[in-house]
Amino acid sequence: MKADWIISHAFVLTMEGKGVGMIENGAIAVKGDTILAVGPTEEIGKAYQAERMIDGTGKLVMPGLIDAHMHTGLAIFRGMAQDMSHWMQKGLWPLMQNTKKHEALAGSLMAIIEGVKAGTTTFCDYDHSMNEIVEHYVKVGVRARVAETVNELPDDMGLVPVGELYPLDPAIGQRKLSANMQLYEKWHGQANGRITCLFGPQGPDMMRTELMLEVKALAEKYDTRIHMHVAQGDREIDQMLKRYGKRSIPFLEEIGYLDSRLMAVHLTEATKEEAQLVAKRGASMIFCAGSIGIIDGLVPPILDFLEAGGQAALGSDQAPGNNCHNMFNEMKFAAILNKVKRSDPTVFPAWLSLRLATIESAKAIGLEKEIGSLRAGKKADMIILTMQDPGLAPIYTNPVRNIVPNLVYAARGHEVETVIVDGRFIMENRQLMTVDEKEALKKAQEAAEEISRRSQRDIAASNSDIYHMMSEGYL
Amino acid sequence: MKADWIISHAFVLTMEGKGVGMIENGAIAVKGDTILAVGPTEEIGKAYQAERMIDGTGKLVMPGLIDAHMHTGLAIFRGMAQDMSHWMQKGLWPLMQNTKKHEALAGSLMAIIEGVKAGTTTFCDYDHSMNEIVEHYVKVGVRARVAETVNELPDDMGLVPVGELYPLDPAIGQRKLSANMQLYEKWHGQANGRITCLFGPQGPDMMRTELMLEVKALAEKYDTRIHMHVAQGDREIDQMLKRYGKRSIPFLEEIGYLDSRLMAVHLTEATKEEAQLVAKRGASMIFCAGSIGIIDGLVPPILDFLEAGGQAALGSDQAPGNNCHNMFNEMKFAAILNKVKRSDPTVFPAWLSLRLATIESAKAIGLEKEIGSLRAGKKADMIILTMQDPGLAPIYTNPVRNIVPNLVYAARGHEVETVIVDGRFIMENRQLMTVDEKEALKKAQEAAEEISRRSQRDIAASNSDIYHMMSEGYL
Repeated sequence: MKADWIISHAFVLTMEGKGVGMIENGAIAVKGDTILAVGPTEEIGKAYQAERMIDGTGKLVMPGLIDAHMHTGLAIFRGMAQDMSHWMQKGLWPLMQNTKKHEALAGSLMAIIEGVKAGTTTFCDYDHSMNEIVEHYVKVGVRARVAETVNELPDDMGLVPVGELYPLDPAIGQRKLSANMQLYEKWHGQANGRITCLFGPQGPDMMRTELMLEVKALAEKYDTRIHMHVAQGDREIDQMLKRYGKRSIPFLEEIGYLDSRLMAVHLTEATKEEAQLVAKRGASMIFCAGSIGIIDGLVPPILDFLEAGGQAALGSDQAPGNNCHNMFNEMKFAAILNKVKRSDPTVFPAWLSLRLATIESAKAIGLEKEIGSLRAGKKADMIILTMQDPGLAPIYTNPVRNIVPNLVYAARGHEVETVIVDGRFIMENRQLMTVDEKEALKKAQEAAEEISRRSQRDIAASNSDIYHMMSEGYL
Repeated sequence: MKADWIISHAFVLTMEGKGVGMIENGAIAVKGDTILAVGPTEEIGKAYQAERMIDGTGKLVMPGLIDAHMHTGLAIFRGMAQDMSHWMQKGLWPLMQNTKKHEALAGSLMAIIEGVKAGTTTFCDYDHSMNEIVEHYVKVGVRARVAETVNELPDDMGLVPVGELYPLDPAIGQRKLSANMQLYEKWHGQANGRITCLFGPQGPDMMRTELMLEVKALAEKYDTRIHMHVAQGDREIDQMLKRYGKRSIPFLEEIGYLDSRLMAVHLTEATKEEAQLVAKRGASMIFCAGSIGIIDGLVPPILDFLEAGGQAALGSDQAPGNNCHNMFNEMKFAAILNKVKRSDPTVFPAWLSLRLATIESAKAIGLEKEIGSLRAGKKADMIILTMQDPGLAPIYTNPVRNIVPNLVYAARGHEVETVIVDGRFIMENRQLMTVDEKEALKKAQEAAEEISRRSQRDIAASNSDIYHMMSEGYL
């Protein structure tokens, strides 16, 4: 049978079955956007022919990584909001209020490039200006599952004193919801189905119950999912208690939000029982190890959630405060932070991190029929890594394999040589084929310089830890 | 004045002063193995000329990183001892007893190459066969501070049931101590002073007090330091209590070991008070964040130690169980693990991680007169990184700089393009100039295959978590 291309003689991590589905001398045949077959090199060689034959000797092929929660529109502020208290109010806010849309967009493209170069092929982006950001995804050629951020907060929210109830404005909510619907109407299913759209309420504390319910009804009408922060911080819980006399998760349970349409992000402040309830109701959990570790110094209850049978995924969140969009980083942090949380080296093994960035993540975001593992009939979204790197050497295969532990604990993303989405090669030899990386970095730099100029006074006025560090020579 | 070469127009992190000593448009003039001057490009340009002028535009120059604790002789087992209980007995031991010296040496060279490619220029290696490993350091051209591991343990230690007192054999101790002395006599001060030698007692539980005191007397006689595991695990504390009725640190205090000659590695099981005592006595602490996080699920009391005024450094420990020798990894883990330990995002900021891998580390290992910062008169040990990487973009310089946070939280080592030790370029454009990387990886792979063949039965018999993972498809 005729394929467009075949890669063979590679280590193939299919991520099929309950483990990692390794085929040591494996091959994959692809036609168009679809995987025709995955199996031992010999078997595939007999059944398929192709003009393009790729020698996978010394390479590892695996599903493209999924980043299940990102705000790429914040990436332009990378490195400006960590090691501090009040990262949002004192780190981000002085910058955000001085940023123009095209500048945030320049940062978004830079972040997408960063992700691709570290092997991410599916991006769950959740941000303002998603109607514009989505065009980056189309251009770069990756898969994206996107939502506009919906809330009822006024633009000058940064001025609301900490502890006071947020002012909620229904008109703002309607405007933002309508941008989210526009996104759905225009983009859902576009680019050969690579772009899919979700609803993006920012959190239960940032809108009235009425809007929450309207979003829920729309998600049902369009048969799509809801990407939402849940119990993301003590400020959220404080708002919920003040507004409703209830914590976030009991509130969401009461209004019927906890079901398989919900992708609940963070759960930082969820109790064990609350995490278990979210799991039991079939909502998924997105765990952002690096971001929450750095901005809050906390480890969300992902293990409690998984132990209750929940479906979870990993995400990189935002560049300011993480400070990167690199799923190898997230896999490492997810594993080690949970080991120290439980004081037990056996919890959160490497294979679990890897599954939560591939097949389990696909299930958690509702794309498991298309991506997350390498299997005939699924989309040809995959990455090829060199194993000829001192950090991944030597390779043992017998009687135990060391490939997955080294991938999670030693690899860092630069080992990814080739990125393929929908059967199309979007990176080869670490060169992006679809966008000009240098030009993108140049534009991001220009944007940062403009933002820097405009936000000087507000940063100085923020009196933040990072501002003090600068004046004391620590930056 | 005439220099051999000058790099200019770069971001220069001198690591001088109490912070990071940034010069935004900086230059460095070097002659032979020594830094002549560091300063603003304009100033250096007026005072120095050189035939080789390096354009540092878009680059960052900083001191070479220091890895203060490694066992490179274990690197051949990378990825074979994590996510498990009894990593040493069930992970390493079945492999170690089936490994020949030349195989361990092949792994050591691979690990050194890994370190160099991630910007490490000074290696504190502490292992058996150091008399042979040291030749790798000479060949690669880096700086090394090395010790032979000294203990009184028989080779078949793996057979001693957990909980029983280790059998100690004075004859073994004398043989190993004499290898350590031989190392010192032959190598101390060699290779233009790049090689310096320490004493390496493996831990207070692994030898009699008499040998401990003999080592201490020798360290004083030779005026060198002692590199030793201290309170590295509950097994050590258990042995100490059984043998002496005392925990490790009170025991060391009593026999006069706690002073500035001691580099105390790990302190995993040290109480706050014990960590404070070590700090107060002037011994330094080596903190191995990744290794202890992964193999023990613990975060040693480094913050207590630092808060008591102690001098500390970071180290990568061993590849099996970390699983890498990459100081960017250690800087990240050090920061995030302490934030979650204290539930406080402000502790262990990026600049602290960076200092503990450069100037503070140099002080902790006793080489601060030669390395750890960029200053006239110090050795020309430095690395040049590209800032043209999406993970390090964009760059803000005003009113706060984001370079150091991005270096610690986003960089991963592949940004290092050039490595210079003693004024000599040992890596350029990521190509090693002194050793054949491909050949080294090939030899490590051949060694691993031999070890794999020989250790099959012992690995199967180990009944380890990792062996079960393999049979269940998780590896």
